[in-house]
Amino acid sequence: MKICKVEKTLVSTNRIRDLGHRPLLVVQEKAGGPRTVAVDAVGCVPGDWVIVVGSSAAREAAGDKSYPSDATIVGIIDYWEEQ
Amino acid sequence: MKICKVEKTLVSTNRIRDLGHRPLLVVQEKAGGPRTVAVDAVGCVPGDWVIVVGSSAAREAAGDKSYPSDATIVGIIDYWEEQ
Amino acid sequence: MKICKVEKTLVSTNRIRDLGHRPLLVVQEKAGGPRTVAVDAVGCVPGDWVIVVGSSAAREAAGDKSYPSDATIVGIIDYWEEQ
Amino acid sequence: MKICKVEKTLVSTNRIRDLGHRPLLVVQEKAGGPRTVAVDAVGCVPGDWVIVVGSSAAREAAGDKSYPSDATIVGIIDYWEEQ
Amino acid sequence: MKICKVEKTLVSTNRIRDLGHRPLLVVQEKAGGPRTVAVDAVGCVPGDWVIVVGSSAAREAAGDKSYPSDATIVGIIDYWEEQ
Repeated sequence: MKICKVEKTLVSTNRIRDLGHRPLLVVQEKAGGPRTVAVDAVGCVPGDWVIVVGSSAAREAAGDKSYPSDATIVGIIDYWEEQ
Repeated sequence: MKICKVEKTLVSTNRIRDLGHRPLLVVQEKAGGPRTVAVDAVGCVPGDWVIVVGSSAAREAAGDKSYPSDATIVGIIDYWEEQ
Repeated sequence: MKICKVEKTLVSTNRIRDLGHRPLLVVQEKAGGPRTVAVDAVGCVPGDWVIVVGSSAAREAAGDKSYPSDATIVGIIDYWEEQ
Repeated sequence: MKICKVEKTLVSTNRIRDLGHRPLLVVQEKAGGPRTVAVDAVGCVPGDWVIVVGSSAAREAAGDKSYPSDATIVGIIDYWEEQ
Repeated sequence: MKICKVEKTLVSTNRIRDLGHRPLLVVQEKAGGPRTVAVDAVGCVPGDWVIVVGSSAAREAAGDKSYPSDATIVGIIDYWEEQ
């Protein structure tokens, strides 16, 4: 799993129905690095350091085996110092 | 999921039957970066910034668990500023 | 999916039975880049620019869900200019 | 599978229920490299060099096909010299 | 699939039961590059250039859909010149 920082919510009105209304968050592995998108399964806020699961596990972690996610936030890290 | 910009349609006449007639789009994570190919599941046009799902989720996102995609466009981002 | 150029056939006499007699091709995303191996599902020749699907979709694209491929050529691009 | 060194336990109180109480460990492929998180299936301690399996195999290796892991420690290496 | 050179056997006494007694080999895509671990399904020796399959195909290639591998050696290349 990757360690990422939550930056903000991503607004995407035109999306496939399977994505539903789950919040999509922009996350970064490190400041200045590439931004990617993760589905929130724990309820986090911008600034949180979180654990992001990828691969096929991201689907089940999103709560449903057929959910189309390849990156799902599965936990908030209690304390993390940026590197 | 990755954040990509749609560049253009990719023409591939000789393709396996399972790909069907779905549009294949050339996308880029950033200007000057490598070009990859994604299946369009939302109806986007060149210039759109989109959300691309990979891994095994790309198959179901393309509308059918047996569709041979490893990168499917699942949403158009309302507003995105290139970085 | 990745965009690759076909370089040549790879000869591997000692292989697991599940690979069968399918042609294995050496492909490259760009000249001078790393060489990888893909299973040919369309019938291409050295010099062709092709679409290579990875992840779990590569298995079904090879014609059988249990085929041990993580990279399968699913289409020949009509026209592609090297970058 | 990757060869990683175990750094420490990761504390994440707020996590999805499917993760259970399994220890999550911070691991590194090399000193100074990026830190990632792996589920411990063998019982290792900080300083151990371990084998980390990814992809969909990480789920089953964690003991249950529906466990949401994309990186699971499946073995401790008897002797490994850092490179 | 990746093209790798077999370096040596990896000894891991403390491993999960699902790994069984299959040989685990240290492989490299190129001299000086990162070392990774692959399960041997063909019977190769140090110095061989081999084809390594990843993703979910690595499990079935190891002989059993529930085998926890994300990298399995599926063929020995008859002739390969290091690059």
